[in-house]
Amino acid sequence: MLICNGFAQGSRLLLQVLAAAGYRRLAVEDPSDDELRAVAAAAGLESVGIPVLEAGLDVEALERSGADVVLVTAAHQFPTGAVTSAQTRSALIEWATRREALIIEDDYDAEYRYDREPIGAMQGLAPDRVAYAGTASKTLAPGLRLGWLILPERLVEPMATAKFVDDRGSSVLDQLTFADFVARGEFDRHLRRMRPRYRLLRDTLVGQLAEKVPDLRPVGVSAGLHVMTWLPPDLTERDVTRAARERGVGVYGLRPYWVQNAGPEGLVFGYGSVTGPAVVEGIDLLADAIAAVRK
Amino acid sequence: MLICNGFAQGSRLLLQVLAAAGYRRLAVEDPSDDELRAVAAAAGLESVGIPVLEAGLDVEALERSGADVVLVTAAHQFPTGAVTSAQTRSALIEWATRREALIIEDDYDAEYRYDREPIGAMQGLAPDRVAYAGTASKTLAPGLRLGWLILPERLVEPMATAKFVDDRGSSVLDQLTFADFVARGEFDRHLRRMRPRYRLLRDTLVGQLAEKVPDLRPVGVSAGLHVMTWLPPDLTERDVTRAARERGVGVYGLRPYWVQNAGPEGLVFGYGSVTGPAVVEGIDLLADAIAAVRK
Repeated sequence: MLICNGFAQGSRLLLQVLAAAGYRRLAVEDPSDDELRAVAAAAGLESVGIPVLEAGLDVEALERSGADVVLVTAAHQFPTGAVTSAQTRSALIEWATRREALIIEDDYDAEYRYDREPIGAMQGLAPDRVAYAGTASKTLAPGLRLGWLILPERLVEPMATAKFVDDRGSSVLDQLTFADFVARGEFDRHLRRMRPRYRLLRDTLVGQLAEKVPDLRPVGVSAGLHVMTWLPPDLTERDVTRAARERGVGVYGLRPYWVQNAGPEGLVFGYGSVTGPAVVEGIDLLADAIAAVRK
Repeated sequence: MLICNGFAQGSRLLLQVLAAAGYRRLAVEDPSDDELRAVAAAAGLESVGIPVLEAGLDVEALERSGADVVLVTAAHQFPTGAVTSAQTRSALIEWATRREALIIEDDYDAEYRYDREPIGAMQGLAPDRVAYAGTASKTLAPGLRLGWLILPERLVEPMATAKFVDDRGSSVLDQLTFADFVARGEFDRHLRRMRPRYRLLRDTLVGQLAEKVPDLRPVGVSAGLHVMTWLPPDLTERDVTRAARERGVGVYGLRPYWVQNAGPEGLVFGYGSVTGPAVVEGIDLLADAIAAVRK
């Protein structure tokens, strides 16, 4: 396992090492987080967006894309909230094996599944074809700067060298603190304590949306720290996010997340650092904002 | 001030930003630490070695080199232990101003000067021409991964962006811990406690060398955590370091530090993490090793 300064450094180093090893085309979920694409471009990799379906990535589109590496948020897709089905997982691994390609599994949100047991990582199914990335940024704090990569054997040595050249190593203080936290069982206790709190926040958010702005239909499974909704045809991201911001509510559009072509309009809600009453008040204000936009 | 993961990350980001801004040729002290040259090459900068004289860098050779950025360890040169004189400092700043060049001041060892007050940083003399780099790796622990850069105004924004893209930021835990340590005066107390200990270790080392292997003449000022000596003509780095290693003594040759042409042979001794008795025993063993080589 390679310790790195969060997913940001880990994914950057991995894309640099892959580019140096001859990889050329990175497939990313469409829509997905936009920051990685800039990192891929800086590393010399072309990015191509592959539609996310309800059961995960469209593997047929991936086949056609000519990509030799794909990044997936299989446990809880960002931003759509989709979970990659067992069938899609198999198809992805089959694709990677046949093409001698690599799957980067960004497991950023796996600790928080609320309605059932979280699904296991793909890494365990094909350790030679999957580079697994975990992080403490979502479960503890992004300021901790702790992420980890579990890598296919052939990538261990080049990645260890890349990390050493990059910054010699991650903070030993952070690593020892986290290791102690895990060893004493406190990390598990923390997750068990936080799951019902986040679940309640999510249920409150979804309930408030259903009650006050029912045409913002949430999609995705009960997991993680964000919810996405599509927008009805008479509303635009630009108008709604602006009117919400004027009322002090931070809600975000999907525009930056589309890779190939802008898809339908939608909103992303984060509840990782708010309280229940703030959610209730926020959706009141959002309903007011949407009413104002519609006037 | 930009906080980074030690000098390793700070200098890498700085060289990348400079290369992107059009800088082409990095002058380094000859001899000097070899790791930076590989980083410069990866960033697309050419490296050129400039001889280190007793008063610091040979500024006339720097003039001729066509470099547009120079890295100096002005307070205590590694490995020669030279201190850059006031006259050389002025000449360097004059050079940088005239050529619109940049001086990177790697002040890694400034906290430990034993025979007099340490000389001030060049950065204070020409803040627009000097990028200053400090680190807690030598004074506290390299595992802390804390370094800092004080940058000319024009480099602040690109460097902040580069740091964010690189890994989002340095460990907040490390930063807060160090800030508290400094604010409570403990860092100053630590330095005041360590200075006489390191001075005693250095005096012991130099005294033992004079007594037991007097033809290894130490050079450089009374400062820092290392001492360099030249080797007499009948000894080679290779033979001496190998014979020492066979006796369990780690002493290092200059070969990796020469940039342009290998200069005279010499040895580097580090005393940053040894005890006084270990120094005495180590020089006994070194004398034995040299006697064996000469047999």
